[in-house]
Amino acid sequence: MSLRGAHASFALLAILASASPASPASDGDAVYQYSTIRALMAGVYDGDLSLGEASRFGDFGIGTVNAIDGELIAIGGHFFRVAADGRATRLPPETQTPFIVLKHFQRATASALPVGIDLQSLEQHLDSLLSTPNHFHAIRIQGHFRAMVTRSEPRQTPPYRPLATVMAEEQVTFQLGDVKGTLVGFRSPDFVEGLNVPGYHFHFLTADETRGGHVISLISVDGEVEIDSASRLEVQLPESIAFTQSDLRANRSSELDAVERGR
Amino acid sequence: MSLRGAHASFALLAILASASPASPASDGDAVYQYSTIRALMAGVYDGDLSLGEASRFGDFGIGTVNAIDGELIAIGGHFFRVAADGRATRLPPETQTPFIVLKHFQRATASALPVGIDLQSLEQHLDSLLSTPNHFHAIRIQGHFRAMVTRSEPRQTPPYRPLATVMAEEQVTFQLGDVKGTLVGFRSPDFVEGLNVPGYHFHFLTADETRGGHVISLISVDGEVEIDSASRLEVQLPESIAFTQSDLRANRSSELDAVERGR
Repeated sequence: MSLRGAHASFALLAILASASPASPASDGDAVYQYSTIRALMAGVYDGDLSLGEASRFGDFGIGTVNAIDGELIAIGGHFFRVAADGRATRLPPETQTPFIVLKHFQRATASALPVGIDLQSLEQHLDSLLSTPNHFHAIRIQGHFRAMVTRSEPRQTPPYRPLATVMAEEQVTFQLGDVKGTLVGFRSPDFVEGLNVPGYHFHFLTADETRGGHVISLISVDGEVEIDSASRLEVQLPESIAFTQSDLRANRSSELDAVERGR
Repeated sequence: MSLRGAHASFALLAILASASPASPASDGDAVYQYSTIRALMAGVYDGDLSLGEASRFGDFGIGTVNAIDGELIAIGGHFFRVAADGRATRLPPETQTPFIVLKHFQRATASALPVGIDLQSLEQHLDSLLSTPNHFHAIRIQGHFRAMVTRSEPRQTPPYRPLATVMAEEQVTFQLGDVKGTLVGFRSPDFVEGLNVPGYHFHFLTADETRGGHVISLISVDGEVEIDSASRLEVQLPESIAFTQSDLRANRSSELDAVERGR
């Protein structure tokens, strides 16, 4: 990510101020998260929150399900899981999650997805659209992609190993090829390290809702970028023994980087 | 802090389970914080939140006021400032803050303050009382102290320097001697680094409400320890240009440690 460049852009946006259509205002509602990325990294793979309860906090977001049995995508209030075979299925409301990030998505800005860019260039493009790197931004990109590589992971059984170990040994990647669908994700400020993934974090669901996963790389064709920003974060920590008795002191940011980048 | 020992104690508490009077349950309400410790460290010393608005989120807590014009203590819904002369005064509701942490304090456990212990031993004692290091704990200790050293800092003028620089050059310490009063503070999980102060963070106000500050060291005589735990955190990020345009990427944890320990 080129955040130095992004900061220069933010400064410019500040000068352009309200004249800029690319400066979304916060609509007042919060980004909600259950548990923390550090707990997930440490192997706290079971949570007590059902998707039915979670849906009160947002209709849009990403996460996983208990036993990290796949990658979770929430769009329009529907929750999907992409399992280790790459297939997407709808999840019933009683499904429980150990980690999820949600928002009530209300589109604040919309603009065209640039043609022929990869994930790194997309992140740089988004940097130039965001009002500030110091708030949260929910990002929905419906588009056509010439290439899309995603990943998921198989259901785990206790005793759970750390996430970096699971991913290094069992991550499955999918070459979705030429595909239409929706990128669902967030940009979180760098200072959330420990709580959530700093920077961009995208999952993908195909338009026919049959495939997807955690996004590792892509090449765009066309589409629309929608951004919904938030200056509020609500964190619900699990009350479970698994969470409360875990040793969550280790800084796992280098492990996190390996897991998030999928390589 | 001896958290290794603390983790052993937490495991024991889990076995003792509900039989233990020292295992406070969360009462459901959240710890609320405005802005982030990293922004304060970076010199974002002016906020838009008035204490009148802030009081909706808690009657108990710590922080500072705009221009970091002293240390803030909230007790029983009253907000006090300890200025650079060591004097405590009541703050009017229109006073604005750049950083504050609040909770509606509802005592969940109470126990005696051990006799003759220093701040480090007090933190170890609290480790043994807390249900988990992975939730938030508001801690109120009304007591008599044989020694109490606090600090504050003078009002700053823009352009603001980083907090570590201000403290290194202008911090003022107070030897309050033999004194009665209230320690007001929180223990936050290690994973909040960037957002808030990991571990313990105490301010002090004398029983006659005339002196106090950020606690650097102490020796206890006697008193009562009250703990109120929370599994929820609400973070409100400022919408100000000062916050949104700041470069908040640097990890300032070593600077933070120097500032919090006051040396």
